[in-house]
Amino acid sequence: MSRRQISGFSNPTVKFLRSLREKKHRKAAGKFLAEGLRLLTDARESGHLPEILVMAEGREAHPLLAALEAEVVRRGGEVIETSAEILSKITGKDNPQTVCGVFAEFDTGLAALDRGAAKIWLVAQALRDPGNLGTMLRTGDGVGAGGLILIDDCADPFSAEAVRASMGAVFTQQIAQARWEEFLPWLRSGPGQLVAASLRDAVPYRGAPYAAPCFILVGNESRGLPEDYEAACDLRVTMPMKGRADSLNAAVAGAVLAYEVLASLDG
Amino acid sequence: MSRRQISGFSNPTVKFLRSLREKKHRKAAGKFLAEGLRLLTDARESGHLPEILVMAEGREAHPLLAALEAEVVRRGGEVIETSAEILSKITGKDNPQTVCGVFAEFDTGLAALDRGAAKIWLVAQALRDPGNLGTMLRTGDGVGAGGLILIDDCADPFSAEAVRASMGAVFTQQIAQARWEEFLPWLRSGPGQLVAASLRDAVPYRGAPYAAPCFILVGNESRGLPEDYEAACDLRVTMPMKGRADSLNAAVAGAVLAYEVLASLDG
Repeated sequence: MSRRQISGFSNPTVKFLRSLREKKHRKAAGKFLAEGLRLLTDARESGHLPEILVMAEGREAHPLLAALEAEVVRRGGEVIETSAEILSKITGKDNPQTVCGVFAEFDTGLAALDRGAAKIWLVAQALRDPGNLGTMLRTGDGVGAGGLILIDDCADPFSAEAVRASMGAVFTQQIAQARWEEFLPWLRSGPGQLVAASLRDAVPYRGAPYAAPCFILVGNESRGLPEDYEAACDLRVTMPMKGRADSLNAAVAGAVLAYEVLASLDG
Repeated sequence: MSRRQISGFSNPTVKFLRSLREKKHRKAAGKFLAEGLRLLTDARESGHLPEILVMAEGREAHPLLAALEAEVVRRGGEVIETSAEILSKITGKDNPQTVCGVFAEFDTGLAALDRGAAKIWLVAQALRDPGNLGTMLRTGDGVGAGGLILIDDCADPFSAEAVRASMGAVFTQQIAQARWEEFLPWLRSGPGQLVAASLRDAVPYRGAPYAAPCFILVGNESRGLPEDYEAACDLRVTMPMKGRADSLNAAVAGAVLAYEVLASLDG
């Protein structure tokens, strides 16, 4: 347990916190940053407590912040007070929120996922945009999905942009990263329908025979899904494209499909 | 008509092109940049020809590029050849595509919108994220919307990020910018149902009584819609939120709703 004030930009802790904006440093430390009282409260209520809590001097008092601070201290975490300028350096934002936290990265792992715990699971393949990835986490929270499975080389779900776009869902959704060669045998080892939006051999997405647990597979932003991944799906569905474009934004396509599946399985 | 090669970073035309990455320079010139042969071809086929076409030296020949170049020359536009390095400076991307174009900004204007031309229109209010705005344009193309109406202070639809996220839909969708005080009287001057996702006094979004032309209103990313804007809607609908979050990403919410409206009106 410790509490301290930091006033220097060159303080090693400040350097460490700033370094977490880069993926290689996040992976080396196994830590990531999340910002804002709302996000940190969502985290706490979902069982994720920051190891380090950084608060701006001169912040307004808030009961949720006081509760968070007390719990971090009780659990042996570190509480740091610093200037708004240094907080801005840490988060890389001109207008930082008054609090941020350092969390341990996590990976639920395929083996630990309880596929029966939810009717919907989202699966992203080689999704490169952290904003899209965070948006998928947020959508997963919306439809009551169990979590997000990241296949092949996806953006980092613990990047600042993904965490921000997830609006706290990074803490409520389970996250597992796996190669396709690991994912497919795991999927086939139990119940689970694999569904993708596709132009090949597809049925209309409205009224398609969805079944729980339904795994909704979304492909890379520019290349879509590899052909053999699509072929491995139990169900290929197509959405109307009335204009010139032949596809939707990946996170949008996943969301339209997820809400259709939700209506189908709940209806 | 002119054709020329530019090899210097300090060339005034290069400086002008680079300046278009900033909003104030775009507004001063009334021009914007779009990048990539796919996008420029979509633009041409939708009736938008670049005033200036910039191509990288050493690019691969392509019949669509040759056709584009010929048409720009025929219409009295300018064709510039330059190095990949300078093209990269212009677009601000490390790996620029081999072609970009300068287009005149446009605003269809409310008065010129033919509301009967489409069953769906998207309306964004104070949408601040250019990626969300471009994604909404792309979704509009997908559902066959007539266009996107931007209410109050939205992100610039002609920013590089919005243009890129629109995947060409910036050229296929009509775009009108208006204050709420202008929009509402215009809307009420003819047929049109105004629909918003809302938590207040709302009915389930599935099976709600949508009617064409249906104007789908999406609010600001963090504040949502002002209460009086919601109150002015003909229909307030709610989407299931099964998790902790109380809202979806703005572009995602608009898309889920737009596809529901499409199914309802086409079904």
